[in-house]
Amino acid sequence: MKALQQQLDFLLQIDQLKAIYRQTTVKNDNNRQENSAEHSWHITLVAQVLQQYAEHNIDINRVTLMLLIHDIIEIDAGDLFAFAQPQDHQQQALKESEAAERIFGLLPRQQGDKMKTLWIEFEQASSIDAQFAKAMDRILPLLQNMANEGGSWVKHSINKQQVLARNHYLQQSAPKLWTYTCAQVDLAVKNGWLIDSE
Amino acid sequence: MKALQQQLDFLLQIDQLKAIYRQTTVKNDNNRQENSAEHSWHITLVAQVLQQYAEHNIDINRVTLMLLIHDIIEIDAGDLFAFAQPQDHQQQALKESEAAERIFGLLPRQQGDKMKTLWIEFEQASSIDAQFAKAMDRILPLLQNMANEGGSWVKHSINKQQVLARNHYLQQSAPKLWTYTCAQVDLAVKNGWLIDSE
Repeated sequence: MKALQQQLDFLLQIDQLKAIYRQTTVKNDNNRQENSAEHSWHITLVAQVLQQYAEHNIDINRVTLMLLIHDIIEIDAGDLFAFAQPQDHQQQALKESEAAERIFGLLPRQQGDKMKTLWIEFEQASSIDAQFAKAMDRILPLLQNMANEGGSWVKHSINKQQVLARNHYLQQSAPKLWTYTCAQVDLAVKNGWLIDSE
Repeated sequence: MKALQQQLDFLLQIDQLKAIYRQTTVKNDNNRQENSAEHSWHITLVAQVLQQYAEHNIDINRVTLMLLIHDIIEIDAGDLFAFAQPQDHQQQALKESEAAERIFGLLPRQQGDKMKTLWIEFEQASSIDAQFAKAMDRILPLLQNMANEGGSWVKHSINKQQVLARNHYLQQSAPKLWTYTCAQVDLAVKNGWLIDSE
């Protein structure tokens, strides 16, 4: 039963993702900060519900598993705000690689390696599935901020170009959602929720 | 774009699941109560990681989707403690059916119907997939309580028989995990975390 004990250890340790807080807030819960576990749940459903807009032939089950595990590394590495400085993102990438080694390494070898490989595929956006998963991960905060009078954009004085750059995966992965996103970004500028960077 | 608007409306409304709190607590976050969104994330990974113990031939992708959506009805119906009285469970079932109509009804017809049907299959445990999903949903609080000195069992004076009854799906769905569960329950009694009901 060594394998089972390793699996249960992993499953208990990932409980800690519920204590990793993001910049996005939960409007319906007194605007408290959102944690990465509930965020992970939410984006898997975004992907499930919006899969028909995928431009290419995606495997929704791989996309779902990617999204379920994509933030687990934050247990060790913490959450970095999407619009942090480039050098912070580089440093974060190193921390996340080490975290992936340790956390997926808790599982029986083969199972852990499979998850780690899937996580790397997501991180590097190296497949159609990973690009769609990334696109879903990034459109959700936009929806949340639009429903929340600009939310974390307003708080951190984010500009239009940053949000469009952040959502660029949509352009190839789901063009209809890209069109929608561009219109929402224009609306956000009009409402004073994003700085006009043109 | 009417379908897209319906889908986005659904995806924003389910954000409310992050404000539905359960009896289980998050040990690593000052023992605050767990919400149903992060719980839903956690059990999908329990199912993914423990799928090899399924006695029958399950479709892990259906199980995963079931678990992702299984608590959404709590947005309208609230969370009922697992060990509530039978009449409370009956009343809850009615509220949950109405909630399923309304919430899955936000989606385009075909998509919403598909999800509602899957939710009913889970609720009624009417398939191999649903029984395994139920088993996973119920073993997780046991793992959490065991890692948390009895957690919600101690708080509500729960007895051994209640926990075994709650976990009975394991017996058929994943016998190895049932064996493990029985041993853990005995340990919990020994530790004074569960009342011995034999």
